[in-house]
Amino acid sequence: MYNPEEIQNIISAKFESLVFKGKPTELYAPISYTLKMGGKRIRPTLLLMACDLFDGDIEIAIDTAIGLELFHNFTLIHDDIMDNAPLRRGKDTVYKKWNSNIAILSGDTMFALAYKQVIKTKTSYLQKILDAFTKTAIEVCEGQQLDLNYETLNNVSILEYLEMIRLKTAVLIGASLKIGAIIAGTNEKDSSNLYNFGENIGMAFQLKDDLLDAFGDENKFGKKTGGDIVENKKTYLFLKACELADNNKRLELNNFYIGNNHNINQQQKIEAVKEIFLKLEVNKHIEQEINSYYKKAINYMNEVSLPDLKKEKLLNFSNTLMYRDF
Amino acid sequence: MYNPEEIQNIISAKFESLVFKGKPTELYAPISYTLKMGGKRIRPTLLLMACDLFDGDIEIAIDTAIGLELFHNFTLIHDDIMDNAPLRRGKDTVYKKWNSNIAILSGDTMFALAYKQVIKTKTSYLQKILDAFTKTAIEVCEGQQLDLNYETLNNVSILEYLEMIRLKTAVLIGASLKIGAIIAGTNEKDSSNLYNFGENIGMAFQLKDDLLDAFGDENKFGKKTGGDIVENKKTYLFLKACELADNNKRLELNNFYIGNNHNINQQQKIEAVKEIFLKLEVNKHIEQEINSYYKKAINYMNEVSLPDLKKEKLLNFSNTLMYRDF
Repeated sequence: MYNPEEIQNIISAKFESLVFKGKPTELYAPISYTLKMGGKRIRPTLLLMACDLFDGDIEIAIDTAIGLELFHNFTLIHDDIMDNAPLRRGKDTVYKKWNSNIAILSGDTMFALAYKQVIKTKTSYLQKILDAFTKTAIEVCEGQQLDLNYETLNNVSILEYLEMIRLKTAVLIGASLKIGAIIAGTNEKDSSNLYNFGENIGMAFQLKDDLLDAFGDENKFGKKTGGDIVENKKTYLFLKACELADNNKRLELNNFYIGNNHNINQQQKIEAVKEIFLKLEVNKHIEQEINSYYKKAINYMNEVSLPDLKKEKLLNFSNTLMYRDF
Repeated sequence: MYNPEEIQNIISAKFESLVFKGKPTELYAPISYTLKMGGKRIRPTLLLMACDLFDGDIEIAIDTAIGLELFHNFTLIHDDIMDNAPLRRGKDTVYKKWNSNIAILSGDTMFALAYKQVIKTKTSYLQKILDAFTKTAIEVCEGQQLDLNYETLNNVSILEYLEMIRLKTAVLIGASLKIGAIIAGTNEKDSSNLYNFGENIGMAFQLKDDLLDAFGDENKFGKKTGGDIVENKKTYLFLKACELADNNKRLELNNFYIGNNHNINQQQKIEAVKEIFLKLEVNKHIEQEINSYYKKAINYMNEVSLPDLKKEKLLNFSNTLMYRDF
């Protein structure tokens, strides 16, 4: 079995070998640019590890794995237009470096290129792979639309927020693992257990992201904390704080978020909001939530009909995603 | 064999039976809205007619046929954002009725839904179908990018223009026919001949569109003529006129298009440009070009290994597309 590092090297080498050039260059330059930004390549890594877990041939799965990474990057290009986000991984986003039209169209092309990679796999499971991938693609769009809707809604519940991050983030983690398992020829029950494992890991992963954004160690996290607070994002921390706060505290918190507090600067706002979060102990609540999703994930993994020893590599890699401080 | 009208009824019934509803409604309402606008449903009609031509079962092809129509409509939603087009088929475009973000995301969803339909077909030819469809989807994006590029370029050649409309319009007509033939189990040679037939019909179809936009009978065409002239679109008519004009006439024409002629109104501009077109006989040149593509198309159809009698229905339907005055 491969180690995660070996798999990540295989993925990097594959990306190096792929040439996303073509004409017109306006269409392909943003695609190369986006892929050269790097990223953790979590989805293809999970796909190949799942394939390897069931003794599948990762050579047969590599193109599909790349396809899932292309899909993920396509969603980032379009999300950045919708979110007016000028920077990603410290660099100009595509719509900022070029323009919105080029970002829309190079994103569309990348979506098609994702399918081009996904369908390269030479297996008899093509239909199953495409069913899983296409269902997930639709759900990711639904999640992004909910995210947009919640920006202007003032009464988002925690359950609604969790459903949004499930669709926007967790299902693609689940699908990556499931598709890897399908390519390895796994039965329905195990590929479904792996999906559920991934979906719960994905939930925990996103909640960890929310936590780190506010309370991460800036040196390790690699960017300034408090971004979500500055952008008034209604993350789990904010929603839980609203739930736990008394009327006065809730009003105070909401005033920070709807911007009635113009006499303080960004840094003061971050500090004040974090202080409220800590007083209400929402950092502890989110950690409980993360652990609860992690436990659910482990339960699904326990159901997978393989010896524990085989599962270690994938569990360890998932742990690094969960217990990261960056 | 089915008549085009029968096939169109089958397609309409299928669209009626499909429910593109879901949550969040912001995502699905624009999809229903777009599909209810109607349209000629040319692509699914051609796909089913091609399937029928080779004695394929159109029941097996109908979902894929719907998928190609969904793909076409997805491109229209995104094109309308990029072109700032407020109206389509007399109604508000999606980005105008809702907003750009919703148009981007409901378009993305529609692209995924297109694949969902395409992959529903239960045939052993799934890989071939997806290869053809995905290649075409990428080419359509390339065509749209060229179209955007040409808006601000002053030295577009006729060859470049023809390549742009080939990618933006003709390849999808070709692919519709090819995929129908694939589903019917046709051999490589015949499905490829059918593709080439469709591509050339598609070229003629788009050039006819250019011609009708300037010189169509407004009562039959269903909209005011001269839209391309008002929008300074460098269609075949304009490019051919530039080629044939002497220096003075070319300058005059360019002045209309780069808007140095502010002392005349839209209607005067349309009349003046059309007069130049007629004087240079570019309407005759475009008709020759249309006929030339049509002849090429017929040559490819002649190569298809079926008796002439069988080909009649598809040829007649293609004729109605070519020799339409609306």
